[in-house]
Amino acid sequence: MKRDSLASSVITLTTDFGLSSAYVALLKGAILSINPNTILIDVTHEIAIGDIASAAYIVGTLNGYFPDGTIHVAVVDPGVGSSRNSLVIDMGSQFFVGPDNGLASHLYHAAEKVSIIQSSDDNIGFGSRRTPEGWQVYTLNKPEYWNHPVSPTFHGRDVFGPVAAHISLGVHPSSMGNLTSELVVQKNSVPRKDGNTVSGNIIYIDSFGNIVSNITKEWIEGDRTTAKIHIGTLTVVGVDQYYSEKNDDFIGLINSAGYLELAYSGKSAADILHSQIGESFNLELSERGTAGNPT
Amino acid sequence: MKRDSLASSVITLTTDFGLSSAYVALLKGAILSINPNTILIDVTHEIAIGDIASAAYIVGTLNGYFPDGTIHVAVVDPGVGSSRNSLVIDMGSQFFVGPDNGLASHLYHAAEKVSIIQSSDDNIGFGSRRTPEGWQVYTLNKPEYWNHPVSPTFHGRDVFGPVAAHISLGVHPSSMGNLTSELVVQKNSVPRKDGNTVSGNIIYIDSFGNIVSNITKEWIEGDRTTAKIHIGTLTVVGVDQYYSEKNDDFIGLINSAGYLELAYSGKSAADILHSQIGESFNLELSERGTAGNPT
Amino acid sequence: MKRDSLASSVITLTTDFGLSSAYVALLKGAILSINPNTILIDVTHEIAIGDIASAAYIVGTLNGYFPDGTIHVAVVDPGVGSSRNSLVIDMGSQFFVGPDNGLASHLYHAAEKVSIIQSSDDNIGFGSRRTPEGWQVYTLNKPEYWNHPVSPTFHGRDVFGPVAAHISLGVHPSSMGNLTSELVVQKNSVPRKDGNTVSGNIIYIDSFGNIVSNITKEWIEGDRTTAKIHIGTLTVVGVDQYYSEKNDDFIGLINSAGYLELAYSGKSAADILHSQIGESFNLELSERGTAGNPT
Repeated sequence: MKRDSLASSVITLTTDFGLSSAYVALLKGAILSINPNTILIDVTHEIAIGDIASAAYIVGTLNGYFPDGTIHVAVVDPGVGSSRNSLVIDMGSQFFVGPDNGLASHLYHAAEKVSIIQSSDDNIGFGSRRTPEGWQVYTLNKPEYWNHPVSPTFHGRDVFGPVAAHISLGVHPSSMGNLTSELVVQKNSVPRKDGNTVSGNIIYIDSFGNIVSNITKEWIEGDRTTAKIHIGTLTVVGVDQYYSEKNDDFIGLINSAGYLELAYSGKSAADILHSQIGESFNLELSERGTAGNPT
Repeated sequence: MKRDSLASSVITLTTDFGLSSAYVALLKGAILSINPNTILIDVTHEIAIGDIASAAYIVGTLNGYFPDGTIHVAVVDPGVGSSRNSLVIDMGSQFFVGPDNGLASHLYHAAEKVSIIQSSDDNIGFGSRRTPEGWQVYTLNKPEYWNHPVSPTFHGRDVFGPVAAHISLGVHPSSMGNLTSELVVQKNSVPRKDGNTVSGNIIYIDSFGNIVSNITKEWIEGDRTTAKIHIGTLTVVGVDQYYSEKNDDFIGLINSAGYLELAYSGKSAADILHSQIGESFNLELSERGTAGNPT
Repeated sequence: MKRDSLASSVITLTTDFGLSSAYVALLKGAILSINPNTILIDVTHEIAIGDIASAAYIVGTLNGYFPDGTIHVAVVDPGVGSSRNSLVIDMGSQFFVGPDNGLASHLYHAAEKVSIIQSSDDNIGFGSRRTPEGWQVYTLNKPEYWNHPVSPTFHGRDVFGPVAAHISLGVHPSSMGNLTSELVVQKNSVPRKDGNTVSGNIIYIDSFGNIVSNITKEWIEGDRTTAKIHIGTLTVVGVDQYYSEKNDDFIGLINSAGYLELAYSGKSAADILHSQIGESFNLELSERGTAGNPT
């Protein structure tokens, strides 16, 4: 996208740095030293250390709720210092900056629209995917846009922050890296479908204890009032409910980001079920919901 | 109040969203998408889920310490999706935006100045109160100022954030809702007085473990050095002390917001007493302190 | 330094206020009420209550990563209400504002460059040090620049915030206090050296559980691959490693702020060792590393 270099850009920050250190402030200082006119928005820094699945979900939920030109920086980077690539993604109206390790998985699925997962695909680990139409993806390789010396353990401060700041000043990503045709996606960031069963998993547990699956509303066909959620031995009927409809019971609903989640009225569903990121979260569709993948 | 629509407004945010989710950032994104020139100040997002008493106290303490025109958004909203109203309060020089569920209770008491509570009133739950002189209170009912679709579970992002942003742009609250003459106040947000006993309760415990009561300095008459605090079986003499005056003991003092609190030198008073929000916190005034309510 | 009073200054905030109260917001409100054009950056508010050692380390790490003119406010203030002084330090290109209780210790050591600690000095408590060349240090004593009434327990809101805001407006520190030639430094913020042993201690544990010592890279002479870290009964060989070099083992490395730290691949070293701030963290240099203090 073209940028008006005079505009003050929003830069969002999603990390696993925690809030008890200076790491977040140093990332911000690196940005402000290059462009003091950015608007810095903390998304969260409380991602569990190395939890790419949760971070990718959270970054995905930002889509559409920030001004055009917003730059989303995500640094959950267990591979810092290894050979993983660093990316800028120009998504048309917004940017992603971060390591190429799956953090853009949910942005990718939203951009792809037509999901191409087959039920026979394995869903463990990471895979390379072709960049969606409308995206320009760049692999960062121009050290002149970084802070020096580059710490081997803190690319947020020394690489991703400075690159985001330069984008906010109007530097085109093509000046900072090479165009690439592939990016890394976490395989289990999208469910599989077999007949009337959508096999998903838990990708996020929010601060209220709501359990979020990787099953987005596009996957839910047929009668929502009789569709069944299966987590472990628990079965919950209905996936389109409201918090206020039930007392002291589990509630299946489409959350404010468009994902199927399991809540519990006034309590933490995750505490009750001892749920963990990555566990199975399956949806049994009603009989007429047996068509193919969502389009 | 009249606003200079060119000024950049401060918007403060007080919620129970926690910091591990994207909810706070989405609220901010909704605001910045409407007015990128606001100054967003996090008050706290660590309110215990649904703890209206603590949130109302915290919002009350902001009074007088922010620039004219500041908009205070509070979202602790256990009734989201039910029939509770949504409010904008024009308090003359500052605004409140949030659900009509008692979050403005302490702002209300500060504005009322003359408290009209009788010792015979019950102090459980919530009640309607006439809006104080000088306030204009509006019930939000104009969906054209909201984000759509409005999530049934996230009015912070879809209603309160956008409304605050429009106020910051100079839209008058009367364009966004109907003037109303009543608002909801939490009944136990103010103490009762009977003879020389002020019967209050714990409304907040801060991060140092200091125990804050709903007894403001206006209620404390007579000799402060001999007034007695009663919490459970504990009695502490004196209510106008300093942290540095005592070693290894409880300390009664008027805190920096003007509320009577119980501290412990260098330790958490709340941990020592296992205190909980809502428990009794009584003040026994010295003999000459037996007059009527504060004026 | 001279300031362009039209520039919008960065003010960083480091406190032990925690995030569950309104204290941080009130500090910000006090600043914005004086200068709404400041850029407020939270460093951390999760310093353990009264932990001056960690706060001093964190403030020290900000050095060099923020724009010229940045004002670093630090409020970890167990002596609030006592006779401790309040300071503004003009460090040439940046400012420090806070109590004179050792919070500037690491800024001091970085400015001194030539360390003058002798192995015979005791390392307990605090001492007065002459202000480094190039610094102007002022003791605050002009109440007309403070908020009134000044709360005896909240100088962040009523003294340090307002003073920082006035600096950001271009008020010279000499208008707000008296030039002084000494400041308080925490004695164990710098290690001692005896022969080939550098005797340090733990000054900080970060959110990843990495254990940071007060031994900066200038103290490490000789062969880094054979230098030995001693913590309790643990010995780790090598002090210049990377996270990615080892699996399931301790790692000695120079961290992104230039301090020697002990990490553990993918785990919390501090949890494994049950480490505490203040414990010994010694470095045994290789034979040729037996010269004098760093210059």
